Amino acid sequence: MTERLVVIGGDAAGLSAASQARNRRGPDDLRIVALEKSGHASYSACGIPYLVGGEVADVEDLVARRPEVFRDELAIDLRLRNEVVEIDLDRRAVTVLDHRDGGRYREPFDQLVVATGALPHRPDLPGAQAEGVYGVQTLDDGVALLRAVESARPRDAVVVGGGYIGLEMAEALVRRGLRVSLVDAGEQPMGTLDPDMGALVAEALRDLGIELFLGEGVEGFSESGGRVTAARAGSREVPADLVVLGLGNRPNTALAAAAGIPVGETSGIRTDRRMRTPVEGVWAAGDCVETFHLVSRRPVAIALGTHANKQGRAAGINIGGGYAAFPGVVGTAISKICEYEVARTGLTTAEAAEAGFETVEEIVESSTRAGYYPGARRMKTKVIAECGTGRLLGAQIVGKEGAAKRIDALALAVWHGMTVEDMTGLDLAYAPPFAPVWDPVLIAARKAAERVERLRGGRAGG
Amino acid sequence: MTERLVVIGGDAAGLSAASQARNRRGPDDLRIVALEKSGHASYSACGIPYLVGGEVADVEDLVARRPEVFRDELAIDLRLRNEVVEIDLDRRAVTVLDHRDGGRYREPFDQLVVATGALPHRPDLPGAQAEGVYGVQTLDDGVALLRAVESARPRDAVVVGGGYIGLEMAEALVRRGLRVSLVDAGEQPMGTLDPDMGALVAEALRDLGIELFLGEGVEGFSESGGRVTAARAGSREVPADLVVLGLGNRPNTALAAAAGIPVGETSGIRTDRRMRTPVEGVWAAGDCVETFHLVSRRPVAIALGTHANKQGRAAGINIGGGYAAFPGVVGTAISKICEYEVARTGLTTAEAAEAGFETVEEIVESSTRAGYYPGARRMKTKVIAECGTGRLLGAQIVGKEGAAKRIDALALAVWHGMTVEDMTGLDLAYAPPFAPVWDPVLIAARKAAERVERLRGGRAGG
Repeated sequence: MTERLVVIGGDAAGLSAASQARNRRGPDDLRIVALEKSGHASYSACGIPYLVGGEVADVEDLVARRPEVFRDELAIDLRLRNEVVEIDLDRRAVTVLDHRDGGRYREPFDQLVVATGALPHRPDLPGAQAEGVYGVQTLDDGVALLRAVESARPRDAVVVGGGYIGLEMAEALVRRGLRVSLVDAGEQPMGTLDPDMGALVAEALRDLGIELFLGEGVEGFSESGGRVTAARAGSREVPADLVVLGLGNRPNTALAAAAGIPVGETSGIRTDRRMRTPVEGVWAAGDCVETFHLVSRRPVAIALGTHANKQGRAAGINIGGGYAAFPGVVGTAISKICEYEVARTGLTTAEAAEAGFETVEEIVESSTRAGYYPGARRMKTKVIAECGTGRLLGAQIVGKEGAAKRIDALALAVWHGMTVEDMTGLDLAYAPPFAPVWDPVLIAARKAAERVERLRGGRAGG
Repeated sequence: MTERLVVIGGDAAGLSAASQARNRRGPDDLRIVALEKSGHASYSACGIPYLVGGEVADVEDLVARRPEVFRDELAIDLRLRNEVVEIDLDRRAVTVLDHRDGGRYREPFDQLVVATGALPHRPDLPGAQAEGVYGVQTLDDGVALLRAVESARPRDAVVVGGGYIGLEMAEALVRRGLRVSLVDAGEQPMGTLDPDMGALVAEALRDLGIELFLGEGVEGFSESGGRVTAARAGSREVPADLVVLGLGNRPNTALAAAAGIPVGETSGIRTDRRMRTPVEGVWAAGDCVETFHLVSRRPVAIALGTHANKQGRAAGINIGGGYAAFPGVVGTAISKICEYEVARTGLTTAEAAEAGFETVEEIVESSTRAGYYPGARRMKTKVIAECGTGRLLGAQIVGKEGAAKRIDALALAVWHGMTVEDMTGLDLAYAPPFAPVWDPVLIAARKAAERVERLRGGRAGG
């Protein structure tokens, strides 16, 4: 008897799940239907800023695998522009709206993967529907923005929101020669960093000629003849031929919630380590789920392609009869804006306090290579450790080329609950073109260990 | 009563120890004399290839701290060209030969740090004393070679030994416009990698126009009028106006051994985690010691500046009355030759077999950035896991810009004894300018996990 798997969402999570399930179970054993409401599947949403900025020449470059590949090579019945509008858990079927002809049909399932992604925050601001105001969530958004940049020859752009997407879009628009302003309600841009490190990002942005309007959110947009002319923040009017909304997103779970699939406190779908929801035979993966933060030990919802892929892989292996788990996250993220690089892992000072930790912090300036080696760049590393134990809770890096990917070593140290003193002994790679003799990661750990020690008043440390 | 600390060796290990001890104990409490036989102290030996290659303009750039700094700011009595010729453990004193005037004197100690470094392998080959044959161990060697390259206008260079130093010197000579040949007795260059990865290094070297003579060691040098004219390897004469010997080195322990300080099976001085030798009040650190390999659980002697610094720091903190340990190594190393990058950590296949492991291996080709992002470079990653358990034992990387420093994440995974399946869940940083959505480290781990699983014949894995 052929089992029926329905996957809602044809992107990283959904199609990873489908592919992994197929790897382990042939078409006679498992029929797979993947339903994607948009006209695109399996694309890199993270690549949109580089499409807009011109580093990526062709929208097709962002497509990881063509739809035919799923049908022809993997026997996955991927249906584009087919939107699931209802999940009926009692009858084990979804209702699908086919946008190509407007028809509706029911698709029965034995197993279901919910991979409905995230929804961008689009606050209901006056003027937000004006022409020239763009989101950057989907490939269609990206293509629309690209056309605007290339054809309408805008001069002034306002990016609303100074998170990762906001910064990457700001870079894209700077590269296109626009005058770019960034509006963010926070004290500093990049609110996922501590303000002391966010201030370094602000400095970098000003360095790139981006004007910053911080500490006040956008209240609306002025328009003329249906076209946006300015963004209003506080008492200011910031001129804009073009507005990009990068205000983050939240799990897209209306469909799941309406069906009675439990949603957690973060508004993401709840799953266990194997990506099972509490409903028998129903799995979820990707931006629509909440996951477990290994340091705060709390649920979090973090929309990120790499998590989506891993969660989809785990779900697919499990559906295929194997065993795989997604253990949770430590909150690692990285971004580039022109020659600046920004990264974080673990908890920020504020997040650590919220999770009940008392912390010790250290910010260290060091160099990406041996100081005498050409191309050495300055970088600042912040480490946050638990008082008393000295356990590494989080780290942040702001620097130039070669700085930020060092966050991976710190992410592993956080993952394993290492103390900063233990970290000073780590066998990290050293040669002058790659690091000073004390890698910046080790310098930061060493300085933090010294501070932990001074606070402890004891004899250990440096 | 002022305690007397004598440090033998004025480089990374010795002066780190001296500085850390001084940090914790003032001059009235601890008198510190550091004795250095050469005319230079506190310099980066690892920087010599870049001095010769011209990336580093001035020999002074390689000096981390001027001798005056130690005397004036740290109250460390650093004496250059003062060579310790004997250690008298019974009378607690060293005999010093002052090369400035040829005089000898005794310097008493309560605590002693032996940091005598490494000695280059200089096989006693016919012609090895000819003009034009250079070692690259000390800054004086480096300066002599630099003068030869700049003034004598050599055209053909032979590098003997294809390890890290050999490759870095080959790059330096290529940059100086010489025709470079590399002679190595091994099947492939970079014998610290497995031959399958070494073959990629060979390819890279040929790509750079370097001629390789593999599988036969150098048997001697031809000379004319006292100047080298060729290196003899097997039946070949490889023309050479200039020869660089990069045959590795061994712990320099004659002085310590003569005094009765125990030397281990690797010929390095034995110490515990706190860098104490078995002799009361005698410490050792740096290239002259043997350390503990955390995977093979065997003693190893690895000459590397970053270990020397950490070991010296630990010794100094302990002498200062604090507590610090050097826990051992996992064998991480990294090197760059022109646009190629090479790195390793943990055990190679051969080392793993020797240590009693049965292994599973996987070599994965991937990309340093998202495939569509400009500047993405191909890289190959090899992972070696234990059969059955799937524990990561080692990894090697050969690639281009942005590839090799990823070894740090793998080094941490080895350090913590992670399985390759566990690694697939690691929260490494992802954004298109820094990595594909599955980081090369994760792809390699995933493929290895699948292989472990297939061999196990079970249901887990991908």
